[in-house]
Amino acid sequence: MSAESNENINAEVMQVEPLNPPHRLLMAPGPVNVDPRVLSAMSQPTVGQFDPYMFKVMGEVQLMLRAIFKTTNKQTFVVDGTSRSAIEAAFVSVLAPGDKVLVCCAGRFGMLLKEIAQRCKAETHVIERPWGEVFSIDEIADAIRRIHPKLVATVHGDTSTTMLQPLEGLGEICHENGALLFTDATASLAGNELKTDEWQIDIVTAGMQKCLGASSGMAPITISERAVAVMDERKSIEAGIADTSEEIQNNRINSNYFDLPQIIDYWGPRHLNHHTEATHLLYGVHEATRIIAEEGIDHVIERHQINGLAMSTALLKMGLKLYGDQQTRMNDVIGVVIPDGLHDTAIRSQLLEEFGVEIASSFGPLQGKIWRIGVMAWNARKDAVLTAASALGTVLNQNGAKLDIQKGIDAASAIYAQSEKESKA
Amino acid sequence: MSAESNENINAEVMQVEPLNPPHRLLMAPGPVNVDPRVLSAMSQPTVGQFDPYMFKVMGEVQLMLRAIFKTTNKQTFVVDGTSRSAIEAAFVSVLAPGDKVLVCCAGRFGMLLKEIAQRCKAETHVIERPWGEVFSIDEIADAIRRIHPKLVATVHGDTSTTMLQPLEGLGEICHENGALLFTDATASLAGNELKTDEWQIDIVTAGMQKCLGASSGMAPITISERAVAVMDERKSIEAGIADTSEEIQNNRINSNYFDLPQIIDYWGPRHLNHHTEATHLLYGVHEATRIIAEEGIDHVIERHQINGLAMSTALLKMGLKLYGDQQTRMNDVIGVVIPDGLHDTAIRSQLLEEFGVEIASSFGPLQGKIWRIGVMAWNARKDAVLTAASALGTVLNQNGAKLDIQKGIDAASAIYAQSEKESKA
Repeated sequence: MSAESNENINAEVMQVEPLNPPHRLLMAPGPVNVDPRVLSAMSQPTVGQFDPYMFKVMGEVQLMLRAIFKTTNKQTFVVDGTSRSAIEAAFVSVLAPGDKVLVCCAGRFGMLLKEIAQRCKAETHVIERPWGEVFSIDEIADAIRRIHPKLVATVHGDTSTTMLQPLEGLGEICHENGALLFTDATASLAGNELKTDEWQIDIVTAGMQKCLGASSGMAPITISERAVAVMDERKSIEAGIADTSEEIQNNRINSNYFDLPQIIDYWGPRHLNHHTEATHLLYGVHEATRIIAEEGIDHVIERHQINGLAMSTALLKMGLKLYGDQQTRMNDVIGVVIPDGLHDTAIRSQLLEEFGVEIASSFGPLQGKIWRIGVMAWNARKDAVLTAASALGTVLNQNGAKLDIQKGIDAASAIYAQSEKESKA
Repeated sequence: MSAESNENINAEVMQVEPLNPPHRLLMAPGPVNVDPRVLSAMSQPTVGQFDPYMFKVMGEVQLMLRAIFKTTNKQTFVVDGTSRSAIEAAFVSVLAPGDKVLVCCAGRFGMLLKEIAQRCKAETHVIERPWGEVFSIDEIADAIRRIHPKLVATVHGDTSTTMLQPLEGLGEICHENGALLFTDATASLAGNELKTDEWQIDIVTAGMQKCLGASSGMAPITISERAVAVMDERKSIEAGIADTSEEIQNNRINSNYFDLPQIIDYWGPRHLNHHTEATHLLYGVHEATRIIAEEGIDHVIERHQINGLAMSTALLKMGLKLYGDQQTRMNDVIGVVIPDGLHDTAIRSQLLEEFGVEIASSFGPLQGKIWRIGVMAWNARKDAVLTAASALGTVLNQNGAKLDIQKGIDAASAIYAQSEKESKA
């Protein structure tokens, strides 16, 4: 670096001001506003990674995640990375090159599963449904019997299409055919019913910045004993200790960072050193899962259902068209058809700049066709839903739409009133 | 999950109390106490990942990291994972299976580089030095000329041994021989001189929880244009768009999460969606790098040097034996020989429980032989050094050592007095 460019960089660097984020109401499908209780937890003092207090926090996080996943799986913890890090950890730990995987793809996040499987050099078989649809269990079962995969990979809630894939009954079929069942519940966990043990799902991964209400950067995962056994066949001895046979080398997990058997040892009673657990993110996960524990996971799911219904009803009744079959929609993500003649990004920019409200576009065939509205975690509450719906309606009317905003808000309010009445009864 | 086990879990979950971390003075080689300014930044309100404000924060973090790395590399950003995530990202993005890599190994973190290279299925050549030593440039140059590797992998500061590998002059030799130079500066960056551009290092990775003073969970990386070009040869088209030729498939980067060309597109002007950037960790990185910008990187390095010297002098003068050649020691990590007859873990537990001070053991051949004391980031300051040295001396004396604590502290104080005098002059 020349002295001159050095000076230029230092001059620019000195002008960087302290953080001062603008107010936002984040109604895209994540990240959503982190609950102030969680923000406060993330600023607690640091302890060392092998401190007895750190082990206590880790253990409590495992306990609370089990309740959320509805599982007794011992191997329930977080991977230190964003949501897709846990997906990759699951795939690379299960799938050796050449192993067969069946990917069920009906949206962008199905395509991501396909891509990650291919990067693992797995023999990747894909069944597809048009975006906006879900698979029947029979359809997946047929493919399993035809392909005999080691792993069946599904997306529980694909935010790109807002659809929720039914999974009940699929676990048994996978196990009858010698396959493990994986589901990506990044955007669905805690917002929709998901019974890991009862539905016999072997691996579930999630994200913190959606219905779990913490910051992005950690990815919860739960792993059945059956799946742990499959991974353990590929477990390798740690660096520096002989690992010479060609067979072991070829079957070895092709990642250190995502080697789940090693991460299990880090989270286990021996706490074998692997990475350095991300202390403050873990604090955030602790408080976020504690908030869910206080409310109770079933009540949290019900709250997402009611608030999602209030949002979809508000938009429908003010005169917008909802996207997709509402019977198979995720509770926490609503698709709205962009009215003819209105420009996707211009409307979203105006909504953000004038009302501080963020909603999202979609991807691929749905880009510019629908908006996606998230009703997640702390933001799955009445004032957030009514504020966002009103603001969107207002901006659309400013751009020539003829929506009856009052009618939409009244219909949403009626849903809340009904729900409050029922919960008192 | 049976109803009974469900109830058991829920009962346990309800008993989890809010976080209440104990006071700790973290003088192990990371994680260290996060500066309260950084903790405060991490609890700022959330913005969306494509919010104009988020792009501003990302841009400023890149700018400040460039000043710390002493580089003009455009590709300077963070990987969303702990320190080793950036190492794996660098290796998997550069090294296709069968590519040759030369690993310089003289401690545990050299062994980690070897392991990660092997997991990438690279043809991994290792040169070794006994733990506690460093390589001469000539020695590495000879191996480069013999092996003709695609990548030369070094550890700048190997915390397991406290040693700092000299790198000046190695970049030219690598480039003359068609190799890229990588260094792992996880524990050394900002605590020791490191001139990325001047020394022609192609890829440097770091960690936030050491001398940079933020929380674990993000890994800074800087990549030269030369290295970007090598990675771009393996760049693949995104999921869902045809990628059919066998050649492309075989050469493709074997990870989605760690695909640096895709992460570069995420950090670049197009902000192509990849992961969801970890908002609050990034806020922490922003404030931590701003603190360094305020002080100036050269002054920060000097502060680590002075405080490291004060710590090593205190321990030496009170009667302990320092580990290794102090001329090649990292500024920020001091090795102390555990006195005969004293038990590693018992002493560390007593120090933690009675004084709230954490120091570390080491690994492999040094486990139980030395303690490692970190003097890093916010903790590279007088009161932290004097407090930790006094506490360690006291606990050792309680266990039968005969240390002259006063003499050690006086000698450290003299170093601070001298340094204050010089900085006023």
